[in-house]
Amino acid sequence: MEKFVIAVLVNNQAGVLTRVSGMFTRRGFNIDSLTVGETEDHKYSRMTITAPGDDRIRHQIIKQLKKMEDVVEVKIMPDYESVKRELALIKIRNKLDSRGEILSAVDIFRGKIIDFSPNTLCVEITGDTAKIDAFITVVRPYGILEMCRTGVVSLQRGCHYLNSELETDEN
Amino acid sequence: MEKFVIAVLVNNQAGVLTRVSGMFTRRGFNIDSLTVGETEDHKYSRMTITAPGDDRIRHQIIKQLKKMEDVVEVKIMPDYESVKRELALIKIRNKLDSRGEILSAVDIFRGKIIDFSPNTLCVEITGDTAKIDAFITVVRPYGILEMCRTGVVSLQRGCHYLNSELETDEN
Repeated sequence: MEKFVIAVLVNNQAGVLTRVSGMFTRRGFNIDSLTVGETEDHKYSRMTITAPGDDRIRHQIIKQLKKMEDVVEVKIMPDYESVKRELALIKIRNKLDSRGEILSAVDIFRGKIIDFSPNTLCVEITGDTAKIDAFITVVRPYGILEMCRTGVVSLQRGCHYLNSELETDEN
Repeated sequence: MEKFVIAVLVNNQAGVLTRVSGMFTRRGFNIDSLTVGETEDHKYSRMTITAPGDDRIRHQIIKQLKKMEDVVEVKIMPDYESVKRELALIKIRNKLDSRGEILSAVDIFRGKIIDFSPNTLCVEITGDTAKIDAFITVVRPYGILEMCRTGVVSLQRGCHYLNSELETDEN
């Protein structure tokens, strides 16, 4: 299934998350991941939504988002000109006979061990979704005990901004 | 204001995010950040919610979450025995006279430059909220053009799990 990433600038107000995610539920659009966080300007929050679907669904979602009062700006983040990152914390079973292999995988994927106990290892890993999925596939046989993923955040490369006011900047 | 981090295991179903965030809106509880992502088990998603408030508000939120049908498990992530991480992408103005200082800050905070254009630099940084806030304070004078934060994810240290079924594990 095709996937796309949409960046949405919304007013930083109570209930915006509920209204946006509610629109997806009501209209039957699926969400793979959704993040929301503060921006450089306290007036706005920025949502990043990863959704599965074809061109038709993408257009419908954008149209519905643009209709919403809380929404200031909507942009598709194209693969070739944006950076996309996700963070995962993964707790893996720590056994003497598999520890070496886990540590090599963490090293190769440039992860970080952030907790170590006699029976558990906790790894922090950052990258695009494919990289994190690949790491999970590698360590799954050793026993994933618990996992927590943030979902995708994304910025356009170079001098392109979600907030169209900025595009008139001297950059 | 005091803050706390709650981990919530929910059924992986359409509309759960809307129902959980809707409960916060309806009851007037504030949310500082909310992330939702898949877990090691496809039946469940895991939400991490950072909220401001005292003991009374914390108890009320937990009580309301536990009442919800979609919610399988709720746990406060205590500061002293959990790891908390957040990811931010920050686009900074790239000028010859400030570039050296930005690169030093990126290095000190163990960030990573993930995009570089004649007028912009994009930094990826991972850490707890205080570390990311500190980095933002350092680079703000050079001009933050755009920013995107995932919100906090958290796991308990050692052999403690959100899913209580796992606690009976041989670990």
